[in-house]
Amino acid sequence: MREEIVEAGLAQFHERGFNAAAVKDITDRAGVPKGSFYNHFESKEALAIETLERYGVSRRLGDLADQSVEPLARIRAHFEYLRDEVLGYGNLRGCMLGNFTTEVADHNDSIQQLLKQGLGLWAERLGGALAEAQEAGSIPAGLDTAMIGRYLVSAWEGTLIRVRAQRSPEPFDDFFTVTFDTLLA
Amino acid sequence: MREEIVEAGLAQFHERGFNAAAVKDITDRAGVPKGSFYNHFESKEALAIETLERYGVSRRLGDLADQSVEPLARIRAHFEYLRDEVLGYGNLRGCMLGNFTTEVADHNDSIQQLLKQGLGLWAERLGGALAEAQEAGSIPAGLDTAMIGRYLVSAWEGTLIRVRAQRSPEPFDDFFTVTFDTLLA
Repeated sequence: MREEIVEAGLAQFHERGFNAAAVKDITDRAGVPKGSFYNHFESKEALAIETLERYGVSRRLGDLADQSVEPLARIRAHFEYLRDEVLGYGNLRGCMLGNFTTEVADHNDSIQQLLKQGLGLWAERLGGALAEAQEAGSIPAGLDTAMIGRYLVSAWEGTLIRVRAQRSPEPFDDFFTVTFDTLLA
Repeated sequence: MREEIVEAGLAQFHERGFNAAAVKDITDRAGVPKGSFYNHFESKEALAIETLERYGVSRRLGDLADQSVEPLARIRAHFEYLRDEVLGYGNLRGCMLGNFTTEVADHNDSIQQLLKQGLGLWAERLGGALAEAQEAGSIPAGLDTAMIGRYLVSAWEGTLIRVRAQRSPEPFDDFFTVTFDTLLA
């Protein structure tokens, strides 16, 4: 039952956001009685933290360190994987880390700390793959790879905002074209 | 009284988001009786739309077409103005267009249309200033200025996400350095 609540919470928070996702919506989605929620979680916030951690794992950051794939191809495949997930939702939902940051981070220190860590780790892993690309001569020697890694997190999160505002995948094309053909070229 | 409600609504929505901003919070902030709200607005959504329009005007997109300033300096000054506003809020609040997109756009077609228009117009104005910069020889001839304009909106919106997750202005430095010293160089 706990596992069903976590999965339903993840889907509900991702789809509706933190404030609009009521505990009752989550237990209904999980197909469990509302009363069972507090046997497993202290609060909606406690569940949100667990779903954010699970969402972070599903970003597959490990793929960014996969030595069997050429580093620049690895970075592209990573963003294609994230893009395909959003395409699968019909250009809705976006990134749960970005959503929680805009809606909750200013008002909840525990969630803010988790988002800071999650986005920071992601930028670091991107920076690591970019450093490998640089060593391999695939991107210009002069680039500050750590900074570009952080910038790509920004560009990606904003791309998802534009995708959702437009309800169109066109901003993904901008992201891939400008990132790989201009910024890293 | 109507004007006081709009100003209070703008501040409350910007600070708390759409769902967490109750009509009572807004009328309290405005210093008016809660009952007066519905004399002026049909719904919280109607007020949200008016505050989003007002927020859009406060972005000063007109500055991006100011011929008295060199185009690249104009773009930089535009983002510095937006940055300084967020610094003034202690790295909180971010961009109301981005916030409403992540929280509301998937679920409200009227607000989604307004966000699409607002972000689209902003990208166009940036693209226009970039085209001028290109004509003046300040940025490389090969750049697709319309596409870079759209990419900069993404990069900026994501920068605000990182600023809020970190509660630090450091991501602004990444934005200015990578945008002006790498992407447009």
